[in-house]
Amino acid sequence: VTLPPEFALIARHFRPLAGAGGLDLTDDAALLTPPPGRELVLAADAMVAGVHFLPDDPPETIGRKLLRVNLSDLAAMGADPLAYLMTVALPHGTGDDWLAAFAQGLAADQAEYGLAVLGGDTVGTPGPLTLSLTILGTVEPGRALRRGGARPGDGLFVTGTIGDGVLGLAAARRGEAGSLATRYRLPTPRLAEGRALLGVATACMDVSDGLVQDLGHICRASGCGAVLHAERVPRSAPAEGAPVATLITGGDDYELLFAAPALPEGFPATRIGVFVEGPAEVTVLDGGAPLTLARPGWSHI
Amino acid sequence: VTLPPEFALIARHFRPLAGAGGLDLTDDAALLTPPPGRELVLAADAMVAGVHFLPDDPPETIGRKLLRVNLSDLAAMGADPLAYLMTVALPHGTGDDWLAAFAQGLAADQAEYGLAVLGGDTVGTPGPLTLSLTILGTVEPGRALRRGGARPGDGLFVTGTIGDGVLGLAAARRGEAGSLATRYRLPTPRLAEGRALLGVATACMDVSDGLVQDLGHICRASGCGAVLHAERVPRSAPAEGAPVATLITGGDDYELLFAAPALPEGFPATRIGVFVEGPAEVTVLDGGAPLTLARPGWSHI
Repeated sequence: VTLPPEFALIARHFRPLAGAGGLDLTDDAALLTPPPGRELVLAADAMVAGVHFLPDDPPETIGRKLLRVNLSDLAAMGADPLAYLMTVALPHGTGDDWLAAFAQGLAADQAEYGLAVLGGDTVGTPGPLTLSLTILGTVEPGRALRRGGARPGDGLFVTGTIGDGVLGLAAARRGEAGSLATRYRLPTPRLAEGRALLGVATACMDVSDGLVQDLGHICRASGCGAVLHAERVPRSAPAEGAPVATLITGGDDYELLFAAPALPEGFPATRIGVFVEGPAEVTVLDGGAPLTLARPGWSHI
Repeated sequence: VTLPPEFALIARHFRPLAGAGGLDLTDDAALLTPPPGRELVLAADAMVAGVHFLPDDPPETIGRKLLRVNLSDLAAMGADPLAYLMTVALPHGTGDDWLAAFAQGLAADQAEYGLAVLGGDTVGTPGPLTLSLTILGTVEPGRALRRGGARPGDGLFVTGTIGDGVLGLAAARRGEAGSLATRYRLPTPRLAEGRALLGVATACMDVSDGLVQDLGHICRASGCGAVLHAERVPRSAPAEGAPVATLITGGDDYELLFAAPALPEGFPATRIGVFVEGPAEVTVLDGGAPLTLARPGWSHI
């Protein structure tokens, strides 16, 4: 019995990525002994070509971006990566070279972030390339960072710089190859920062759909308001001249946005506002004056 | 801050499906305390409209089919269902009624099979409806059924009847509403049978891509051959007149195919062949004469 194309493809490109419990991707399911004394943290995200990434993005970056977006969800909970499962719906005629590069990118990130694939599924689609990834991580039981613990008086902080994702999308669309386009294609999950925030942050999430909109999620979950000082939002050098409204409503930042009464000396984050008593609303000030935004962020529907 | 459409949709249709660790689907990830003393079993499958189900299938059945296909993977390992995560790529303009029915179908199966959703993602797509589901189950450590343990002399068995899936697809395409179309849309995962095979079967898998092709997977994993007696393959009443080659190479059966030296009295399965010494090949006999097949089963690429 010769292997049909689906299984030959999996054997060639995806089997080398499989972790111990993945059983070489030849069984109906994977086996995983949960690390003793740890709580599991699980998240799933999907990406569609032309919606979440550009159809002509390099294949090396496409799977990695989805993996990093999921790792960013683990970072937001303060969790350590453990393993992942991925399903891939491939447009008919996807070439072997494309798949080899796609798998190579995943292999690089598996090594960098210390996790492996446990299983998945490869199917064909008459539509655009569509990927889905479920990630598993672990955290000390009961200590995971959540969105609902911010209290009035807590400072509002963010890691890294904000707005490079949306500027990077524009740069990538223009065919530029600089740091902004790279940042759009390969965000950096803030795993070390998330881990360091355990016991420090009262609420945390990752910024994926626009800073202002995502801050609204923390406010709703925590039952308080927030005042954001737009001029304090950290920018990268290439973002110097961009309108602040673009930066704080653009997506794909994958920085951590969090509440904390105070931060340890030298913690790599910027204070950009404060949580306040009142309804779950975000007040955006720019140099002290209210800033009106056309929309707070992205919806993927 | 008003919720954008993506989050309103999730709140309305998917939040009621969330299990305890799902945190109302409002956090970056879900939390799960693994059941003590159990090994986790994980599988992921994807389905694309027009490839794995018919675009005009009732929305109540579409999510359920994917859930049941994944439950069937757990059954093949002898595992108990625990929870799942799902991502949904919705064609633009998918209506609220469609989503309500889709979620209602999932709710019914969650109740029937005793599991809940932990998380996921909802995105838009310019392509066909595309679903991906990751399922988690548990099994007593080291006891999961695998594909690789069949030994020459073991009997070859199958649960239920074979071929209703492929006949059901044809019936559904013709717009018929009988038992075959229902079976295509809502397969029955053989969870109780899988559990009962722990310590009984030497190898097991579920039949999803054609009996002959899937039997080849067991042979390769086990390093032995198999002789399949096509005339012994159990058929349902509506399949009585169908060519045996159609039945044993069609997909979507979701019955358990397994090897065992012997079965307990009254075990609900049919002996359809035997495992033999030699290369990992499947010999198909029909009334004792070799049966030549155009292809052994389905590839989804």
